[in-house]
Amino acid sequence: MPRILTLAGAQTGPIQRADSRRHTLDRLIALLEDAARQGAQMVVFPELALTTFFPRWFIPNTQELDTWFERAMPNPNCQALFDRARELRVGFYLGYAELTEDGHRFNTAITVGPDGEILGKYRKVHLPGSVEPREGSRFQQLEKRYFEYGDMGFPAFRGPAEWHRPVMGMLICNDRRWPEAWRCYGLQGVELMVMGYNSAAYDPNGGSTENEDIRTFHSTLAAQSNAYMNATWAVSVAKAGNEDGSGLIGGSVIVNPDGVVVAQAKTLGDEVVVAECDLEACLQGKEKMFNFAAHRRPEHYKRIVEQVGAEPPA
Amino acid sequence: MPRILTLAGAQTGPIQRADSRRHTLDRLIALLEDAARQGAQMVVFPELALTTFFPRWFIPNTQELDTWFERAMPNPNCQALFDRARELRVGFYLGYAELTEDGHRFNTAITVGPDGEILGKYRKVHLPGSVEPREGSRFQQLEKRYFEYGDMGFPAFRGPAEWHRPVMGMLICNDRRWPEAWRCYGLQGVELMVMGYNSAAYDPNGGSTENEDIRTFHSTLAAQSNAYMNATWAVSVAKAGNEDGSGLIGGSVIVNPDGVVVAQAKTLGDEVVVAECDLEACLQGKEKMFNFAAHRRPEHYKRIVEQVGAEPPA
Repeated sequence: MPRILTLAGAQTGPIQRADSRRHTLDRLIALLEDAARQGAQMVVFPELALTTFFPRWFIPNTQELDTWFERAMPNPNCQALFDRARELRVGFYLGYAELTEDGHRFNTAITVGPDGEILGKYRKVHLPGSVEPREGSRFQQLEKRYFEYGDMGFPAFRGPAEWHRPVMGMLICNDRRWPEAWRCYGLQGVELMVMGYNSAAYDPNGGSTENEDIRTFHSTLAAQSNAYMNATWAVSVAKAGNEDGSGLIGGSVIVNPDGVVVAQAKTLGDEVVVAECDLEACLQGKEKMFNFAAHRRPEHYKRIVEQVGAEPPA
Repeated sequence: MPRILTLAGAQTGPIQRADSRRHTLDRLIALLEDAARQGAQMVVFPELALTTFFPRWFIPNTQELDTWFERAMPNPNCQALFDRARELRVGFYLGYAELTEDGHRFNTAITVGPDGEILGKYRKVHLPGSVEPREGSRFQQLEKRYFEYGDMGFPAFRGPAEWHRPVMGMLICNDRRWPEAWRCYGLQGVELMVMGYNSAAYDPNGGSTENEDIRTFHSTLAAQSNAYMNATWAVSVAKAGNEDGSGLIGGSVIVNPDGVVVAQAKTLGDEVVVAECDLEACLQGKEKMFNFAAHRRPEHYKRIVEQVGAEPPA
């Protein structure tokens, strides 16, 4: 019996610092409506989808920094998106900057169900960048300064009955390049991985080690291979284009459990990709090649948890 | 300063049950000489490179089974390969079935240096297949019956000075699809991963779930992505073609630390692929995106060692 779930990736173009929240919400709602018209039941938005990628700036003033954060979810500054999604009975993944009541900051994502309920929450574990600003650089990457490391691990959860109760997992941006993160969900039997990203298209400070093509290739490769090795569907969605002078890759994809791209964005702007996904397609991998119970040998994996950095032989 | 090492993959066509060992050795030596002529310093042969893939048959007679195993390495039945390699000052990776003095059987690979010394040994950890034969099936996959699980973990080692002392790691066939295996080498700073495989091109018993194209795609995807995520060179080499009535994929590749294929076999027969590889190309990944010490969070990876099979949420 097929278990069909129609998924969408709602890639956004850049969200500029000068854009009003109302303008941004209108764009997200338009993408949601476009996806719903195409039959999507679940729409994946990018990481930090409500704002520009503010970790690119050094913001010493805490009050100013706080303006980028959400204190509750939903809240009046994004309620319109939640309301419209519930009307359409479409669920969604949304990345945002979270400020907790007791003053902790996380790079967070939630998955919202068709009834508007929050099905799951995730706080980014693999924060890139640095704590201290790089002197003399026009653009920073200060995620390690502005956010604490995610404190929830990798918590899988079940989607609702009308989605055929898929086991779901969330990642955020850089997490998708870390096979440990995927495997922790794989070990919970994940059938659908959803994630958003803001990934540099090039060094905004003028370095030339990696260009946009190779960076997009890496993003797609990570989604394909980790979907395959964990026998899961994956939807990986960009905020793309020239955002406040810094370039972001696009390349949002929907990948099947064979690691094959079934839909991919063609632009660097607001763009919806949609695919009908049969959750039962995960079974081939889960029962044969990646039957973990039959084939994994954790007694040989201890390095993965017992050391952090690389320790080369003498 | 570049650290250039010229690597070759020596894909073989099928090695039939009826082939004499002398005939097989002559083929391997011809591939070695071809690679050496193209400047290769290190040549990667397939898994079980000296024999047909005998786990496809149920062999109840232990004496008959023993004929497929090597009791020492080198030994008179493969000395000619070792001698020629030493003359040419070319090292090699060789997969073979190992029978120890005290009666243990492993699916094993060694890496031999340019002086003929054994630099490293590895015993396959991820054995596919089953212990018991599948009744009524023409072809079996009995690796779990004929071999014990590798008991050496994932031991990285250093290549010789004339190779610029790369940190090296070995895998065998199915291991290459397991990100845990690669990561255990990544955590030892691996710069060069070498591996051979015998991978079915289709279900030899007539099933139709996966065809040759998707299986070759999976093999390449696993090499590309795990090379990228561990910032290492990788050479992954097939025994290919129709072997004793059972089809094996080709697609042997050399992959750079960006996950880009730099050389790939085009046939299903004996074929050498060669690439000049700068080991320093690993640094970009190891120092930035995959700076493990800066970015890994092992406190969240415990499932990877604390459970074997998948445990879905309620």
